[in-house]
Amino acid sequence: MSNSKGILVVLSGFSGAGKGTVVKRLMESYDTYALSISATTRQPRVGEEEGKSYFFKTVEEFEKMIEEDKLLEYANYVGNYYGTPADYVNNMLKSGKNVLLEIEIQGAMKIKEKNPDAVLVFLTPPTADELKNRLTNRGTEDLATVEKRLSRAGEESNGIENYDYILVNDDLDTCVKEFNEIVVSEKKKTFRNREFISEIQNEVSKFKK
Amino acid sequence: MSNSKGILVVLSGFSGAGKGTVVKRLMESYDTYALSISATTRQPRVGEEEGKSYFFKTVEEFEKMIEEDKLLEYANYVGNYYGTPADYVNNMLKSGKNVLLEIEIQGAMKIKEKNPDAVLVFLTPPTADELKNRLTNRGTEDLATVEKRLSRAGEESNGIENYDYILVNDDLDTCVKEFNEIVVSEKKKTFRNREFISEIQNEVSKFKK
Repeated sequence: MSNSKGILVVLSGFSGAGKGTVVKRLMESYDTYALSISATTRQPRVGEEEGKSYFFKTVEEFEKMIEEDKLLEYANYVGNYYGTPADYVNNMLKSGKNVLLEIEIQGAMKIKEKNPDAVLVFLTPPTADELKNRLTNRGTEDLATVEKRLSRAGEESNGIENYDYILVNDDLDTCVKEFNEIVVSEKKKTFRNREFISEIQNEVSKFKK
Repeated sequence: MSNSKGILVVLSGFSGAGKGTVVKRLMESYDTYALSISATTRQPRVGEEEGKSYFFKTVEEFEKMIEEDKLLEYANYVGNYYGTPADYVNNMLKSGKNVLLEIEIQGAMKIKEKNPDAVLVFLTPPTADELKNRLTNRGTEDLATVEKRLSRAGEESNGIENYDYILVNDDLDTCVKEFNEIVVSEKKKTFRNREFISEIQNEVSKFKK
């Protein structure tokens, strides 16, 4: 098919659902994905590279991007801006890569508003009990941190129904395979193949005499 | 996930696209599918079994089914009624089977109207040239039949954009695998998993204190 444009895939999910691991495995297993890179005004940490970890911006630069509508979404978190530069995402999509964007629900909804063709996937452990186990058994954290996590899961669960897909992460290999199948299937949606459909309709109409 | 209801999958496509072969292979390869069985008023042919090939009905019986809204769609073709009995489809869906319905575009649109959750797949050869080759090289038919087929392909191509997915049948194995992946991915749509989502939201909300 002539459709070679990539899909913007937004991944959200409970902390403890394994989003980071799923993204890492997707990148390792398939050459069809690219990771979205965020812009931020926070200081680079040791080992972080410009254009790889983040696009590091001054507050002035970031606010100019906001004004010029160059961010798919942004938020201010503990005094620093974080956002998704539209240009980078769009260039990757044009080159045919499916762009992965790991982001929380407010950002996900803004993305969907600006890019209705984006695919939103919510990742969850198989059960709430399993989620609780994963959040409490990480080991190192104190009780207050664990409780904060559990409480946050409650907030994260609001709005799952606004996502396109819900994906259970029980077995990692299965989950990564299913995630990729969702994206591969989405590429076959008719609205993503208008050019190919027009071509074949045009050709076939010539059969009529 | 608690979602065990099947999906109604409508398959249309150009004559010569290989719909019949794809359906046959799907049924052989996966135990998750059931074939929809049509009702008709035409006479049974030798070897055709009631409730297997068709549900054979009198005109009175068929028209009663129409009145009682017991058909998902129906049409009159060369003096005989053909239709899709809703009860049979709904029972199969409830039992967890994905129900395959091979039907042309007018019927497909009626199905989508009555069952918005149905998934509509349009099957096509990779190119119009390939379609022409398949339609002309079947061997046995005379020129008039071939031309009728070619002309019909033009009509069949109208409205492809009203389907959910367009699937290219180039290699049969690949096509059958991709068809199944579309259905498996569709089962992960959030709107098909409302019960599971409510459950997990309810459980997770108890984490908050």
